[in-house]
Amino acid sequence: MKLETPPGTRDFLPEEMRRRQALIDKIRDTFELYGFSPLETPAFEYAEVLEGKYGDEEKLIYKFEDLGGRKLALRYDLTVPLVRVAAMNQLPLPFKRYCISRVWRFDRPQRGRYREFWQCDIDILGSSDMQADAEIIACAIDSLRAIGIKKFEFKINSRKLLSAILKKLEIPPQKELEFLRLLDKLDKQGEEVVRRGLEALGLDSENLFSILSLDTLDSVRELIGENSGLSELEEVENLLLNYGSDYQKFLTLDLSMVRGLDYYTGPIFEVSLGPYGAIAGGGRYDTLISQMAGKNIPGVGISLGIERIIEVMREEGTLPDGRGLRVYVANADPRSRRGAYKILQDLRSAGIPAEADIMNRNISNQLKYAGKTAASLVLIVGSRGLSSGVVTLRNMLTGEQKEVQRGEIVGVIKELQSENKAETRKK
Amino acid sequence: MKLETPPGTRDFLPEEMRRRQALIDKIRDTFELYGFSPLETPAFEYAEVLEGKYGDEEKLIYKFEDLGGRKLALRYDLTVPLVRVAAMNQLPLPFKRYCISRVWRFDRPQRGRYREFWQCDIDILGSSDMQADAEIIACAIDSLRAIGIKKFEFKINSRKLLSAILKKLEIPPQKELEFLRLLDKLDKQGEEVVRRGLEALGLDSENLFSILSLDTLDSVRELIGENSGLSELEEVENLLLNYGSDYQKFLTLDLSMVRGLDYYTGPIFEVSLGPYGAIAGGGRYDTLISQMAGKNIPGVGISLGIERIIEVMREEGTLPDGRGLRVYVANADPRSRRGAYKILQDLRSAGIPAEADIMNRNISNQLKYAGKTAASLVLIVGSRGLSSGVVTLRNMLTGEQKEVQRGEIVGVIKELQSENKAETRKK
Repeated sequence: MKLETPPGTRDFLPEEMRRRQALIDKIRDTFELYGFSPLETPAFEYAEVLEGKYGDEEKLIYKFEDLGGRKLALRYDLTVPLVRVAAMNQLPLPFKRYCISRVWRFDRPQRGRYREFWQCDIDILGSSDMQADAEIIACAIDSLRAIGIKKFEFKINSRKLLSAILKKLEIPPQKELEFLRLLDKLDKQGEEVVRRGLEALGLDSENLFSILSLDTLDSVRELIGENSGLSELEEVENLLLNYGSDYQKFLTLDLSMVRGLDYYTGPIFEVSLGPYGAIAGGGRYDTLISQMAGKNIPGVGISLGIERIIEVMREEGTLPDGRGLRVYVANADPRSRRGAYKILQDLRSAGIPAEADIMNRNISNQLKYAGKTAASLVLIVGSRGLSSGVVTLRNMLTGEQKEVQRGEIVGVIKELQSENKAETRKK
Repeated sequence: MKLETPPGTRDFLPEEMRRRQALIDKIRDTFELYGFSPLETPAFEYAEVLEGKYGDEEKLIYKFEDLGGRKLALRYDLTVPLVRVAAMNQLPLPFKRYCISRVWRFDRPQRGRYREFWQCDIDILGSSDMQADAEIIACAIDSLRAIGIKKFEFKINSRKLLSAILKKLEIPPQKELEFLRLLDKLDKQGEEVVRRGLEALGLDSENLFSILSLDTLDSVRELIGENSGLSELEEVENLLLNYGSDYQKFLTLDLSMVRGLDYYTGPIFEVSLGPYGAIAGGGRYDTLISQMAGKNIPGVGISLGIERIIEVMREEGTLPDGRGLRVYVANADPRSRRGAYKILQDLRSAGIPAEADIMNRNISNQLKYAGKTAASLVLIVGSRGLSSGVVTLRNMLTGEQKEVQRGEIVGVIKELQSENKAETRKK
């Protein structure tokens, strides 16, 4: 048997999987609180559903034929399948959906970039109102806060505003897309590369950079006058106040942020974590569904880069272990096995994850296993203790050990469990 | 855009997805309570990892080449990837893992059979002790009970016992596998087909069918004498008592149940739901990992057929809607929008899923939307009510409507939420 996974793919062993699951569960809970509904689509689509949708990136799509000769392709993102679903069904509008699932891209594997990875998307279809954009922003902010990311910049910009600026700079409309693609490189490749690119396009970069550094809507207004891109962003900012006073403070106007995808039409978003760069991105796409599927449905959404987020949290040492409190119920001798299992089942019935020996091991090997695996508490059940109604509780984290009355075990552990949860929250 | 999913694959729209998610969450919780840990593997493997593992079924594997010319294959089940992981890593033993994830088979799509479907597997690697088999059985029983399936037969049998019976019947060892494959058809194709098959093999069927109808271990012992298959099943039954008195009552000895897969070596399991047939299957495979990967690790596991279970529950009308209590906060007029959002955010902060208008709709259209979608409670917030500190709460299920003090909203809804949970549990 070949003992490898294909390049760019990973096994997630339990310890790692628990960490991912803990984050994903919290994000999912936040999406649900905001009234988003789950939608899942197949891992593969007819290839033609994905073809012609991703520009240059199309070469990264995994394509194959099934045994019936159908041309299929692995899902490249969660957006195009959503568009297909919206085209195929009479969805009640607004349609607020989330999807946390895997996608595949034949990219060059490198640190933090995989060929199989998970995306966490929320989208709202059917609303042109800026309240929908604000809802997406508020939900994304709360999702990040729910997993413990509290300091970040929520960059906003607008494709309409960028168009107005380009007009002001007298850049001809046919050069707009080329210009935006160039600007998109500013973050990664630096001002010099963009400057040279602009020169090649025959554009004056001096003026541009001073405009791009404007960071208030008022200063932009002074320069280019009233504009629908401006008023939309202002509305988003205002509507965000509906959610509370602490959402606005994350927002930063960043005129140099353009987002790679061609299909955005209004406000665009990017969440940036200082030196780590972008951990989420999205925006409004009011013509995508009509272009792809002929239905005139506006949309706005954001994708949280869960792989990137996990990587950053790991580097910062803030990735939760996601284990919770787990109990190992050891039997000191074969005669106390049934007694140990009785306690085991009481714990499980009370909602406490617990394990006992399934190897017919002696007590010292049981304790060795409990120490190696996830158990944070060990109950030692001996026949003498059982007859006098007590068991020994050992806290594997603190080393503490004490006797507990048989009837009080569940209560004592429930209490430790809630303390543990409080402890984890504090971190 | 082609408005179809490939044959045998499905979109799960929110209503359906919530139902699935509710079941899967409960199964996952039970797996966790039993101390199983999550493991996830890539959707595709090197093709050679899967080749030669599934006998005749190998033709159902989706194979393709990536752009680097690597021969890949979509995961056919969750067992072979587990074996690969066990071979690649020094796992702490016993290794108890669960995996709830999708697999792909190029099967003929038909009612209840899909090309993309989910499996829910638990496996224990590293224990030869029958307590591991009992742990798998107890966990499977509790998983089914957790999702509301309370009446079922947990059929057990043993490959060792079958071998002993075949020996007793003087069936030559080289005909054993052929015989078992024939017997596997008994359930679906009936006695006559098997009878004729046996005749073709030159075997006496009369004697066989009377043996297969034996349903106690004692009666089998009388016939064939002491045997390790017998004593193992007896031990499993006894050890199951460790979990409580109500697990054994699900067990039925069914000597005609053989399970399709060739790799089982000891006890085998199948959960049967009367006329609906099998909804879960598994068994002990002590030589699989050594055969595939050269590591001498015994294993035992079971796979819950979640697609089948959903289908049965839908037919029986017992599939939960998985929605929980959801609130729509309507604003009676534009001036009360911010007040409505304030309440909305209070609800969300208290862990109550809630939505408000993001379409700038008037009150009647908001209520229409709330009625069409998942909301079970509607709060109507008007500027007059806000100034006197009251809002209207409408229960969409009962039609009831009452005034609630602004400061008591969260408390009142929390109470309804816990009543709703109690209600759902009762069903």
